[in-house]
Amino acid sequence: MITQTADHTDIRAINLAAVLAHLRREAPCSRAAIASATGLNKATVTSIVGELLDRRLVRETQQTQNHVGRPATLLVLDGSAYATIGLEVSARGLTALGCDAAGEQVLRWHRAGPGPDAGPAKAIAAIAALARRAIASVQSSGRRVLGITVGVPGLVNRDGAVVLAAGLGWRDVPLGSELAAALGRPDIPVTVDNDASLGVLAEHLYGEYAGTPNLIQLTGDTGVGAGIIVDGRPLQGHLGYVGEIGHLRLIPDGPLCACGRRGCLEALAGVPAILARVGATVDEEDSQRQLEGLMRRADNREADVIGVLTEAGTHLGHGIAALVNVLNPEVVVLGGAYALLAEHLAPAVDKALREATIAPDAGGCTVVPSSFPHTATPLGATAQALTPLTSGRLPG
Amino acid sequence: MITQTADHTDIRAINLAAVLAHLRREAPCSRAAIASATGLNKATVTSIVGELLDRRLVRETQQTQNHVGRPATLLVLDGSAYATIGLEVSARGLTALGCDAAGEQVLRWHRAGPGPDAGPAKAIAAIAALARRAIASVQSSGRRVLGITVGVPGLVNRDGAVVLAAGLGWRDVPLGSELAAALGRPDIPVTVDNDASLGVLAEHLYGEYAGTPNLIQLTGDTGVGAGIIVDGRPLQGHLGYVGEIGHLRLIPDGPLCACGRRGCLEALAGVPAILARVGATVDEEDSQRQLEGLMRRADNREADVIGVLTEAGTHLGHGIAALVNVLNPEVVVLGGAYALLAEHLAPAVDKALREATIAPDAGGCTVVPSSFPHTATPLGATAQALTPLTSGRLPG
Repeated sequence: MITQTADHTDIRAINLAAVLAHLRREAPCSRAAIASATGLNKATVTSIVGELLDRRLVRETQQTQNHVGRPATLLVLDGSAYATIGLEVSARGLTALGCDAAGEQVLRWHRAGPGPDAGPAKAIAAIAALARRAIASVQSSGRRVLGITVGVPGLVNRDGAVVLAAGLGWRDVPLGSELAAALGRPDIPVTVDNDASLGVLAEHLYGEYAGTPNLIQLTGDTGVGAGIIVDGRPLQGHLGYVGEIGHLRLIPDGPLCACGRRGCLEALAGVPAILARVGATVDEEDSQRQLEGLMRRADNREADVIGVLTEAGTHLGHGIAALVNVLNPEVVVLGGAYALLAEHLAPAVDKALREATIAPDAGGCTVVPSSFPHTATPLGATAQALTPLTSGRLPG
Repeated sequence: MITQTADHTDIRAINLAAVLAHLRREAPCSRAAIASATGLNKATVTSIVGELLDRRLVRETQQTQNHVGRPATLLVLDGSAYATIGLEVSARGLTALGCDAAGEQVLRWHRAGPGPDAGPAKAIAAIAALARRAIASVQSSGRRVLGITVGVPGLVNRDGAVVLAAGLGWRDVPLGSELAAALGRPDIPVTVDNDASLGVLAEHLYGEYAGTPNLIQLTGDTGVGAGIIVDGRPLQGHLGYVGEIGHLRLIPDGPLCACGRRGCLEALAGVPAILARVGATVDEEDSQRQLEGLMRRADNREADVIGVLTEAGTHLGHGIAALVNVLNPEVVVLGGAYALLAEHLAPAVDKALREATIAPDAGGCTVVPSSFPHTATPLGATAQALTPLTSGRLPG
């Protein structure tokens, strides 16, 4: 749909976004190819490309194309002058990822804790410290930081406040504004979003099933959240509280969930529940080692572990079936620890999904492991922070 | 987003659609007002309005506007030359609705049966007979029929075939193609869609909460289906099999459902289940009278009936909570018999919804009765059949 009320600036931004999008998909390509593909006239393309060259967002490359005639000057994206930072807060700790404006990874850090007992104030201080160091590191490599996005396993409102993150023990934490204040960098916008919503962005942009219009990614980490792309667009909902499949009640009067209810998918098949059920000692600081132990025991086909994973997979399949009955996705991606355990979960997931979906053949849905088991959220966060640029608003 | 590859015909259609949409919202209005609101230049608006006048889709009206200066010639939509027909197939029987191109109702018929035992062939013959008579009636009033859309309580694929409609006992019924063949009117396109998906269109276009970007309508009829508008657009999904909330398993090993599974929402809180539980004799041909009896007993506060409705409302609230946790709608509309029973269902629905939704205050969701308890689906079907026109493709 044409934005009928678009003024000149909007139109410039829309056209600029179209040129960048074409370059992202098709580069290297010539100005003429861009004009032809976007429907923009050549003068407009030349002007836009000029601006992008000035900002070092594209560069020219001399290349011979596969046809007769003299070599054309081709254009490629050049993200090297800019970067965004994606952060993930989870019970496993903090992850920071930096990507340049072309999507190339330039920084990846992980640090443990602070655990849920530390409280949000300490957590925000730790997030700010990590963000500050990430900014400094990216800047020291000559890149300008365009924005920071933080992913949190919980409900995030439009102001960047965390309304509820049961797995972190957070309620009404104004993370976005406090982090921005702690950073003191008004030139670097800070946004906060749900971890699953960011994770599915990474799958939709960079994953094995990139571009799939109906795509769901399940986090398998602190909680069980669904990031949802429907009909080609990230699902937003009324207030942004979408994808909370972890609190679907599968069994009335089932086990207690961190949210205070009973029988939630998360309480039955969440990664912490799986770890607890195989007897892993609950040690906040060492969930990665616990997970590795679980995988080793599963690979050794220890009967009790296989039993737990089969039961969890069945519950997970029922949870996925609820999503499939309502949303009819083409692909459901198992993220986080689910991706690492996919081989052991898959048979039970598939069986339950097929049994509980009303459409034949699960409505054409395939369940696959994520290509980014532990970085989908921060990777999606770097993409989210790049949104102003990809929608055509150049850095000032 | 501008359709970058739009050719001249596409652009004409997009502009025409924008003019029609503005007239639908704002008429009566002047050519100048249309130009100003749509961003189209005046020559384009004059040309488009000329074509619409020729086709009798708009007409001029002399009217004094509320400002100084001579009376302007204003334009209003004129749907009187065209109509579309919406049909609903349900266990209650067949409903036909005709609306002119401005959305004014010009025909409304209901006829009983054929019941589920009759089989799809007899049903298609009955649907075709009803459609033929509706076409004749609309044509005899001087209107041209632009299209027919049929709503069915089941899974409908992109070819208009009913893959599964458990409540009708149908499986793999090529309704669209057989109905088109039976009608023998290649000038009148026939489409088939899920009843809930059509019902929510009616709510989104004409209901009390019209225009709400995140809106769900529940059918409470043969089955329990959800029609879903997300972020302003009807949810499509991979193959169109969306909104099947009726087969969410609420209670493992619960009562048997028509789909063959156990504990589905439909088996616990579907209208046929409610009627059976209050002891209404199962009489296919008289579900309307059964429903009236139920409402009378509920209004008299008969304890067993109130008990059944409270239990059904609780299950319904849990089903709605699953939708709310995943989709965060602003409004959920109770359709069909649920709308008629809303007063008695609401307390239990609200309580369960609030308890089972992870977001505070049910994520801002309100549950309301439909304005069209028994006509949402055929009304949405008339709107669906008008889609080519509203997207700017004029009748040939």
